[in-house]
Amino acid sequence: MTDHPKAAPRFDILGIGNAIVDVVAAVEERFLSKHDMRKGSMALIDDATAEALYRAMPPAQESSGGSAANTCAVAAALGAKVAYLGKVADDTLGTVFAHDIGAAGVHFPSTRLIGGAPTARCLILVTPDGERTMNTFLGACVTLGEADVDTALVADAAVTYLEGYLFDPPAAQAAFRLAAETAHRAGRWVALSLSDPFCVDRHRAAFRDLVRGHVDILFANEAELCSLYEQEDFMVAAEAARRDVALAALTRSEAGSVVVQGGETVQIAAEPTSVVDTTGAGDAYAAGFLAGLTAGRSLAACGRIGSIAAAEIISHFGARPQTDLKRLVAGVAD
Amino acid sequence: MTDHPKAAPRFDILGIGNAIVDVVAAVEERFLSKHDMRKGSMALIDDATAEALYRAMPPAQESSGGSAANTCAVAAALGAKVAYLGKVADDTLGTVFAHDIGAAGVHFPSTRLIGGAPTARCLILVTPDGERTMNTFLGACVTLGEADVDTALVADAAVTYLEGYLFDPPAAQAAFRLAAETAHRAGRWVALSLSDPFCVDRHRAAFRDLVRGHVDILFANEAELCSLYEQEDFMVAAEAARRDVALAALTRSEAGSVVVQGGETVQIAAEPTSVVDTTGAGDAYAAGFLAGLTAGRSLAACGRIGSIAAAEIISHFGARPQTDLKRLVAGVAD
Repeated sequence: MTDHPKAAPRFDILGIGNAIVDVVAAVEERFLSKHDMRKGSMALIDDATAEALYRAMPPAQESSGGSAANTCAVAAALGAKVAYLGKVADDTLGTVFAHDIGAAGVHFPSTRLIGGAPTARCLILVTPDGERTMNTFLGACVTLGEADVDTALVADAAVTYLEGYLFDPPAAQAAFRLAAETAHRAGRWVALSLSDPFCVDRHRAAFRDLVRGHVDILFANEAELCSLYEQEDFMVAAEAARRDVALAALTRSEAGSVVVQGGETVQIAAEPTSVVDTTGAGDAYAAGFLAGLTAGRSLAACGRIGSIAAAEIISHFGARPQTDLKRLVAGVAD
Repeated sequence: MTDHPKAAPRFDILGIGNAIVDVVAAVEERFLSKHDMRKGSMALIDDATAEALYRAMPPAQESSGGSAANTCAVAAALGAKVAYLGKVADDTLGTVFAHDIGAAGVHFPSTRLIGGAPTARCLILVTPDGERTMNTFLGACVTLGEADVDTALVADAAVTYLEGYLFDPPAAQAAFRLAAETAHRAGRWVALSLSDPFCVDRHRAAFRDLVRGHVDILFANEAELCSLYEQEDFMVAAEAARRDVALAALTRSEAGSVVVQGGETVQIAAEPTSVVDTTGAGDAYAAGFLAGLTAGRSLAACGRIGSIAAAEIISHFGARPQTDLKRLVAGVAD
C-alpha cells in the first residue's frame, strides 16, 4: 500500500461493479438439473435464455443486487461513507436499482444508458439448502467503460473496491484498470473481490497480473483463491496471496475467515446463524471488513464485523441487510 | 345460493381484482407520521404522490400482489383450480405480475393495457410490529371494465371471488356487477371480500346493496364488518351478515374466525405463529376457506385451512406462500 501524504478522502469506499437487479425464487434441486445449471455458480446468459428461464421460474421477488453494490449497501448500513459506480438503463428496473442504492445511503452519480440494452438482471435460484445458483443477463452493464470512471471520485475514496465480475463485460476491464491506476496515483487503496471461482477460471491470467500489480486488498473465498493459484490446499494458496498483496481476507464459510498481512495471520470464527439464502455472504463480509478498516479498527475487529454482517445477510432472503447492523456490531472490540 | 342443475365447472375459483405489484419496505413508526399515513390502512395515491413517496422510501423489494390475486395464488398452492382477471400494462411490472401469477399455477387470460397508464403499484410500509400501511397507485387498474369480464370464464368457475377494492376504480364497479350477474345466471356462487374498513367507508351504500342482492359468501374482518353495518359490536354485525348472505366467514386476527351459515355458527381458533408482516393475511384466509369449500369440506375444516394459510403468510415478508401449503393442511379433519 502507498503511504505518501494525502488529504482525508470524502468517501471511505467507492464500489465499482455490474449494476444488477436480482430476481430471486425458491426451487427444488431438480430445477437445476433440468436446466443444466452448476449449483452455486454464476452463469452468463443472453437475452433469449434469460426470457426462457424467467418463464420457467416459479414466482419471484425482485430487489437490487450486484456484488459490489451489495457491499456498498452493507458498508453504508455500518456507517461508512460510500459511493458506487455502475451502469443501469433508463427503464423500470434501472429506477428500482437507483432508488434502492440511494435509499441505502450510497452516493450513486452514474448516468443511465439511454436507448440501449435494458438494466441487467440476475435470475437467482435458491435451493432448500440455502445455496444460490445465478444466471446473469448483463444488459446495460456491458457498456460500462473508461468514460464511466469518475476519476475525481476515485481519488476521493480511501478504498476503491472492484468486483471480479467486472472482468466479464470486455469494456469494464479497461474501466477496472483505469480506476486502479487513478486510485494509486492519488495514494488510495485498491481492493478486489474475486467474486466466483468460475469467473476466475474465465480470466485467470488477467486476474493474476492484476492481483500482483494493482491490488492492495484481496477478498476471496476458498474456491476462488484455490482457482486463482491453481492449488488444492487452502493454506498453500493463502501463502501465495500473502506474497502478492498487502492484505488478504480469505473466507471459508462456516470455518470462518483468515486474514494475512505481511508476517501476520489472524483467524476469525464464523458467526453462528441459520442459513436461509447465502446470496451476498461474501459481499457482506467485504463490506464489514472495509468499514472496519477505513475506521481504523484492528484486523481481528475488521474480520469480526465482516462475519457478523455476513451472518445477518444469510439469515434471510436477499443480499441487503434487514436489521440494524450498527447495533449488531456495537460490541466488537479491537 | 342457487341450487339448480349445472355442469361441473372447469375452475374452482375465479378471482377478479386490481392487479398490483407490491413494493415493500421496512420503516420505523415515525415514517408514517411524517408522511401523514393512517397505520394499517390503504390509501389511494396519484402518480406524483407515488413518485415522491417512492423517493422517500428505504430500499424495497418488489413482488406481485393485489388482494384477489394473492387469494388466487394461495388457493392454487392448496390445489384448487384457479383463474384470475385483472388489468396490467405492457411494461416491466406487468411482465413481473403476469409471470408470477402464471408461475403460481393460476390461469391469467387478461389482455394487457397498451399505451396507457403503467402497471399499478402498492407502496407498502411495514412497521416493526408487522403492521402494513399501504399506498396504492391504481395505474392500469382503472381501465378494468365490463369488456374485461370474460363471461364464459365466470360461468365456468364454481365461485367468482371479487375484492372490495374493485369499488375504487369507477369502471370496475360495472365489471363487478356484470361478473356477479353472470355467475348467478350460470348457477355459480359469488364471493366478496370487503378488503379494508376505509374502502367500506368510501362505498358503504353500494356495498350494502351488493351484499344483500348479489353476494353468497362474504369475507370480512371485524373492522370491515362493523364499518359495513355501522355497528360497534362484532356479534351484532355478524347477525346482520347472517341475514344478508348465505355464508359469512368473519376473521378476528388472533381471536380466530367465526363462520355463520343460516342457523349454524362455527368458531375457529387462530393458528399460533410469530408475526413478521400481516400483508395478505385476509387474502390467504379466504383462499384456504374457498379451496376447502369447493373441495366439499366442512365449514370447520374450511376455516381451519384458511387459518393455517393465513399463519404461513404472516410468518414472513410478502403475501404469497413460501412453504408447501398442501403439506401444512394435510392433517385437517372435517
